[in-house]
Amino acid sequence: MDEQIQAGSRVGMVMATIRQRIAGRSLTPGAKLPSIRSLSGSLKVSASTVVDAYERLVAEGAILSRPGSGFYVASQTAPLSLADIGPKLDRAVDPFWVSRQSLEAQESDLKPGCGWLPPAWLPEDAIRRTLRSLSRADAASLSDYGSPLGLKPLRQLIARRAAERGIEASPDQVMLTESGTQAIDFLCRFLIEPGDTVLVDDPCYFNFHALLRAHRAKVVSVPYTPSGPDIELFAAALTEHRPHLYITNSAIHNPTGAMLSPVTAHRLLKLAEQHGLTIIEDDIFADFELTPAPRLAAFDGLDRVIHIGSFSKTLSAAARCGFIAARPEWIEGLIDLKIATSFGGARLNAELVLSVLSDGSYRKHAEGLRSRLAKAMFEVTARLKPLGIRPWLEPQAGMFLWCHLPDGLDAAAVARAALAQNVVLAPGNAFSLSQSATGFMRFNVSQTLDNRVFDVLRDALKQASTTRPATP
Amino acid sequence: MDEQIQAGSRVGMVMATIRQRIAGRSLTPGAKLPSIRSLSGSLKVSASTVVDAYERLVAEGAILSRPGSGFYVASQTAPLSLADIGPKLDRAVDPFWVSRQSLEAQESDLKPGCGWLPPAWLPEDAIRRTLRSLSRADAASLSDYGSPLGLKPLRQLIARRAAERGIEASPDQVMLTESGTQAIDFLCRFLIEPGDTVLVDDPCYFNFHALLRAHRAKVVSVPYTPSGPDIELFAAALTEHRPHLYITNSAIHNPTGAMLSPVTAHRLLKLAEQHGLTIIEDDIFADFELTPAPRLAAFDGLDRVIHIGSFSKTLSAAARCGFIAARPEWIEGLIDLKIATSFGGARLNAELVLSVLSDGSYRKHAEGLRSRLAKAMFEVTARLKPLGIRPWLEPQAGMFLWCHLPDGLDAAAVARAALAQNVVLAPGNAFSLSQSATGFMRFNVSQTLDNRVFDVLRDALKQASTTRPATP
Repeated sequence: MDEQIQAGSRVGMVMATIRQRIAGRSLTPGAKLPSIRSLSGSLKVSASTVVDAYERLVAEGAILSRPGSGFYVASQTAPLSLADIGPKLDRAVDPFWVSRQSLEAQESDLKPGCGWLPPAWLPEDAIRRTLRSLSRADAASLSDYGSPLGLKPLRQLIARRAAERGIEASPDQVMLTESGTQAIDFLCRFLIEPGDTVLVDDPCYFNFHALLRAHRAKVVSVPYTPSGPDIELFAAALTEHRPHLYITNSAIHNPTGAMLSPVTAHRLLKLAEQHGLTIIEDDIFADFELTPAPRLAAFDGLDRVIHIGSFSKTLSAAARCGFIAARPEWIEGLIDLKIATSFGGARLNAELVLSVLSDGSYRKHAEGLRSRLAKAMFEVTARLKPLGIRPWLEPQAGMFLWCHLPDGLDAAAVARAALAQNVVLAPGNAFSLSQSATGFMRFNVSQTLDNRVFDVLRDALKQASTTRPATP
Repeated sequence: MDEQIQAGSRVGMVMATIRQRIAGRSLTPGAKLPSIRSLSGSLKVSASTVVDAYERLVAEGAILSRPGSGFYVASQTAPLSLADIGPKLDRAVDPFWVSRQSLEAQESDLKPGCGWLPPAWLPEDAIRRTLRSLSRADAASLSDYGSPLGLKPLRQLIARRAAERGIEASPDQVMLTESGTQAIDFLCRFLIEPGDTVLVDDPCYFNFHALLRAHRAKVVSVPYTPSGPDIELFAAALTEHRPHLYITNSAIHNPTGAMLSPVTAHRLLKLAEQHGLTIIEDDIFADFELTPAPRLAAFDGLDRVIHIGSFSKTLSAAARCGFIAARPEWIEGLIDLKIATSFGGARLNAELVLSVLSDGSYRKHAEGLRSRLAKAMFEVTARLKPLGIRPWLEPQAGMFLWCHLPDGLDAAAVARAALAQNVVLAPGNAFSLSQSATGFMRFNVSQTLDNRVFDVLRDALKQASTTRPATP
């Protein structure tokens, strides 16, 4: 059953349809839902699919069943209400909450919960220079499809940058993608089957949950420590659940900002070898590092570890471009998959990224970012302290601060209160498969410097403390 | 079993691995393949997966089994050899052949088989102007993620353009994608389950086969006539196979250039309603039309028909941007799927497309393209005639000419001979699920104006006529 609850399934489609009608107020609280027969007719699905969807919506509390009478919209369901985040990871909407609130936010909203830098922190001048020089590029670069692997000079540059971090990859082992997320999506399509078990960190980047659900994977999580996954529990999970794949960030872990230690990396790879585990190492935060952390891909030599990255965090998120570096014999199959599902790559984005990365100013820009983030990390930590918000650890680098809220407050309640004042926060359980992060909140320090954030936080904490306390 | 043969499966991965080693000559003809045990160890898959993969490779003729001795590389397997195209649609490589040869071709190669216009035919000046004006855009447009639905002014413009073709869609029913191919991929993920049956035209765009295989769909095809699918056989297929989805191009059909007639469109929609069939209408060639053809999406009002398009064919394939227009209650679920699998959209490509489409020059450009294509269609038809190559029909518009070869020659043999002289052709069976197009070839008239194409064709036809004739 569980595999059906994902974007691709018809049950999911029926649920999305009903949720949308509720969100769009074409079905108001208390309203009666369409009959099984009429909805199965209008959506062209079987009656049992509608029954299944209605039952799940009842289980979620989105609708009510009145035996003998039918199904009715529950009274307190607001569109994308945070009340639905938290314990219910069987809800398609939950892992999307932070991303949707952040991506759909207005210019004027504040987004301490989002996962990217303010535009003013990115290399605006280099991008403008690049667009001007691209306006003089040859016609093919402006209008032809990219090659299946993608722009060769950019793949060569990516290979050189990987080598600087000890990851040996030839340019022909590198395939460009539209984004880091698409890179992981391709690899899941290539490596796992519906029902396969995939291991993630707890907490981990919430979109891993969303993506793995779209692949109908069974997801198992292992607690993350300041030096990597809890290696004893990791070993136990391998034995108990026999996962096919593990997805992680080693360098600057999202959301905790932790760094994998060499000893944990070594043990982890030994375990992976014993159990035939393949690992996707998502390295999109690499350019934020002050001192290079150990990389699984470096220790492993791209044997069972796949290295992926993108430029959305340090260069531009408007020109999406990511990559996969993997064992050569997998690239051929990945190319076919890329052609089948997206045909040629976005050549112009690749040209833009190549040109900005090659621009002498990029390394200076990255250095500037690192010190600017370090300053913001220090300032935000200091300003959160009086509110009783304490970091779980002091990250060595990056934009994320993973924090305890005071007095076991429920982060979802705090985020709900802040959202009412147009401040998007990232409540802990959005990152936690085990839902054990009720009292945690992720802050993006680059988006947490505005005084209004702290005023709104203060109010939101007050409000939340008056609501029911979270289970400890 | 059949559903396993696709890019996502581990069997497919093992097959790709072996094919790659053969292509890369690390396994030479006659060489012994790794033992089941050693390969299952090194690739971390079960022995039965390797056995399954080896059996399929034997079935393809790529390797041989010597009972009691093991598996060996067959003698005449060349990398991506056209000898393997044609009857064997259970080969992952076949539906990819034309796309890979075209996308991987050198600048100097000629590509009458490819599916796009030469760069010089695209609005180069408008793109250059746009890049210069984008270099002065606000910082957010240059470096922020796009919103989940995508750039609103572009969605409004797409809605207006659709309305001109009688397709009523509000901008909020339009979701931007990275490409037309990705639009179909999202819809397949959203609407079908592995094992579901999908209906396509015979012949149809070869990448539909590749994409549907990646989704593990069972594919059924219906012969295409000059006025649309054969409606009697279409009805029979609905009754016999109960497909969930039908994917087609109504306006300028790929590869035939045929146009759907109003009467066929009406009958088709009535049948679709009776059988609860959902239809994806791929409308990427719309701007090539001289007189608007009937659209299923227009007749149906985006009820069971989904309208998709892109700008890769008439604006630029380097700045990928496509879209989906569908019933409002589906968009919500599609947004979640887009975020899970690619997060924010490529905002810069959307800004570029919007700006070029809004540039006064675009309509002139499109008009110019249409007359230039009409001239090329006339010239190429005339120059193919002396070679005994006759169009199946005279297309009203577009770039494609679907042709009979003389004397039942085998198009694969002709394409193989031409490829040896660096001319990429598109043999008929790459488009045909039933493999009934052995004697057909698709020509892209915009890429068939070079004298060398005709010289190479003449030789290739001669060579092919000396090889074994195709089965009639």
